[in-house]
Amino acid sequence: MKIPKGFLFSGISCGIKNRLKPDLGLVYAPEYAQGVYFFTGNRVKAAPLLLGRAKLKKTKGKIKALLVNSGNANCFTGQKGIQDAEYTCKAVADILRIDSRYVIPSSTGVIGKRLPLRIILESLPQLVCGLDEEPSAFSQAILTTDSFKKIACREFRLKGKAVRILGIAKGAGMIYPRLKQATMLAFIFTDLNIKNALLNKISKNCVDLSFNSISVDGCCSTNDSVFVLSSKKVGIRSLSSKDLKVFSEGLSEVCLDLAKKIVQDGEGATKFIAITIKGAVSRSEARKAAFSIANSSLFKTAIYGENPNWGRIIQAVGQADISLKENVSIKSTSLKSKNIDISVDLKRGGFSWTVYTCDFSPEYIKINAQYS
Amino acid sequence: MKIPKGFLFSGISCGIKNRLKPDLGLVYAPEYAQGVYFFTGNRVKAAPLLLGRAKLKKTKGKIKALLVNSGNANCFTGQKGIQDAEYTCKAVADILRIDSRYVIPSSTGVIGKRLPLRIILESLPQLVCGLDEEPSAFSQAILTTDSFKKIACREFRLKGKAVRILGIAKGAGMIYPRLKQATMLAFIFTDLNIKNALLNKISKNCVDLSFNSISVDGCCSTNDSVFVLSSKKVGIRSLSSKDLKVFSEGLSEVCLDLAKKIVQDGEGATKFIAITIKGAVSRSEARKAAFSIANSSLFKTAIYGENPNWGRIIQAVGQADISLKENVSIKSTSLKSKNIDISVDLKRGGFSWTVYTCDFSPEYIKINAQYS
Repeated sequence: MKIPKGFLFSGISCGIKNRLKPDLGLVYAPEYAQGVYFFTGNRVKAAPLLLGRAKLKKTKGKIKALLVNSGNANCFTGQKGIQDAEYTCKAVADILRIDSRYVIPSSTGVIGKRLPLRIILESLPQLVCGLDEEPSAFSQAILTTDSFKKIACREFRLKGKAVRILGIAKGAGMIYPRLKQATMLAFIFTDLNIKNALLNKISKNCVDLSFNSISVDGCCSTNDSVFVLSSKKVGIRSLSSKDLKVFSEGLSEVCLDLAKKIVQDGEGATKFIAITIKGAVSRSEARKAAFSIANSSLFKTAIYGENPNWGRIIQAVGQADISLKENVSIKSTSLKSKNIDISVDLKRGGFSWTVYTCDFSPEYIKINAQYS
Repeated sequence: MKIPKGFLFSGISCGIKNRLKPDLGLVYAPEYAQGVYFFTGNRVKAAPLLLGRAKLKKTKGKIKALLVNSGNANCFTGQKGIQDAEYTCKAVADILRIDSRYVIPSSTGVIGKRLPLRIILESLPQLVCGLDEEPSAFSQAILTTDSFKKIACREFRLKGKAVRILGIAKGAGMIYPRLKQATMLAFIFTDLNIKNALLNKISKNCVDLSFNSISVDGCCSTNDSVFVLSSKKVGIRSLSSKDLKVFSEGLSEVCLDLAKKIVQDGEGATKFIAITIKGAVSRSEARKAAFSIANSSLFKTAIYGENPNWGRIIQAVGQADISLKENVSIKSTSLKSKNIDISVDLKRGGFSWTVYTCDFSPEYIKINAQYS
């Protein structure tokens, strides 16, 4: 794997989940990284998001370390939860001998429980010792109900120089990023030296087309976060609009790759479904209709049963808050296949949007009846 | 059962579903009934709703017969679907020797298929022959995935005279009435002579607190309809506001009784859940928060697993489009019980709302993977 220059990774098991499962991860950018971030649109925001947002505002997006734990969301834990998060950041900063302002926390797991501070603090030296350029242990440590690691990377050349993008994500349930500006846990790293305003603009579009276009279960998480960070190790003299297009396409591919992996790993999923709405009067209309289908339990169970009950698609489109004509048409590839494309033509205008979702299986119920 | 005066009922099997299951019902009010009606808020409205709405507008709510079939929703069937529905109305009118303007159709079942006209028309004489005061066969004929008949009735005295209210409903899946003015199939009959404007006002409130406060699966149907009809057989001299209150309470009880039965019969349901939001700044805010919980797959599967994962309640409240304070509190009765009360106090104001829902079980997936 070709890792962007300027980032080191580590991941260990500290005992938040249990002794055997990795649950604590660290990313370290020894000479700073700078970037943009997207947090959940849920009105309830977890402590690490509230703290991270405040810190990133002060540092204008500069980061030296990202401390990520799974097994505990540190959400709905009040002021104490924010103090806990800052305490772990300070402890990491002390070991790395850096300013704790540049350490950002991120958490995922059960909502409503305090972080187990003691076991985290005790494990930090081991975590720091493990830092190297291999991101595999980190990508494992951030998982919860996920069944596989989610990594995507791209390398391309700008004016002869190699530029790399690496994306690492987690997510399988509580996946319906409804993002004024947000989504699930995803960390994207690049070494391209790019101005933050430009990176922000490019990232927004990429996030919209990827993480903002997926749903597993219609439940928008309290901890959704995307970071797009650059170590700025690779400087290109006068980035042209063509250069930016190449970078933007690479970033877009990494984001979409990760977003699709999350849906493929959707809790209990047996099918991967791409729903495209065509002929809408706006992208927003197409998106509303697509998500209304993607979040319908009746649609998702029909797909699980390979049952061509397209009345449920019409019902879902009708439930979306959009105007409709009588001549809506529906096309679909075979429901027997693991990958299914569904296309709905509203025949009203020229806009389209695609969202990605999975089916609803008895396994989904089993996983979520037990998880706590 | 004490049936309101002025109504006759019939129900048979005509072969829409299969030879054994009842699927065609008729209500006949020989000397007219008048009333109010509520249709679905889904943008896609089934043919019988479009036709019925047009007819009822012309007759100012006067009805002589209601022809109801199950097994076929006659929805997304275009102009042909409306013609089919009117054709069946005309055939009933011919046999009853009444004006077809006063015959209203209602359908429930699979979306997107034309009505099987021939078998319906052939069965109408038998259907009409079966008319009597016993509503049991009718209440059976309108069911789809329901596992039991849904009937509720009340009798009370106004100025010494007996007044009766009878309600008959169907529904187990695709239940999330989002009613600008609407809900699932429910037929309420009374013999009280009451002005239509008054009946409308009282009914709206009753429907809001009952059918508009339930969700099985978050899917708003294309065929939701409630009729509240009076034969006006029982006249009370100068209905006082106290009389109206007694009537209103009776109607409210019948509506809530039916709405709760629908949730109790929710597809695959093992738990009946009442979610009350307190301390909201408006009824609308309380309702939004309550439905956000009621429609969360993660919440519903946790309840199925008797898993006190209250973080999922917080997540769902945060996803509702309302403002939140940090000190939200949650109370719940035992999750081991079949009936569960959950109360969430937003601590922001003085308004509250209760919605009713059920859990999500593997049986729900099984039913809906196969149904078509």
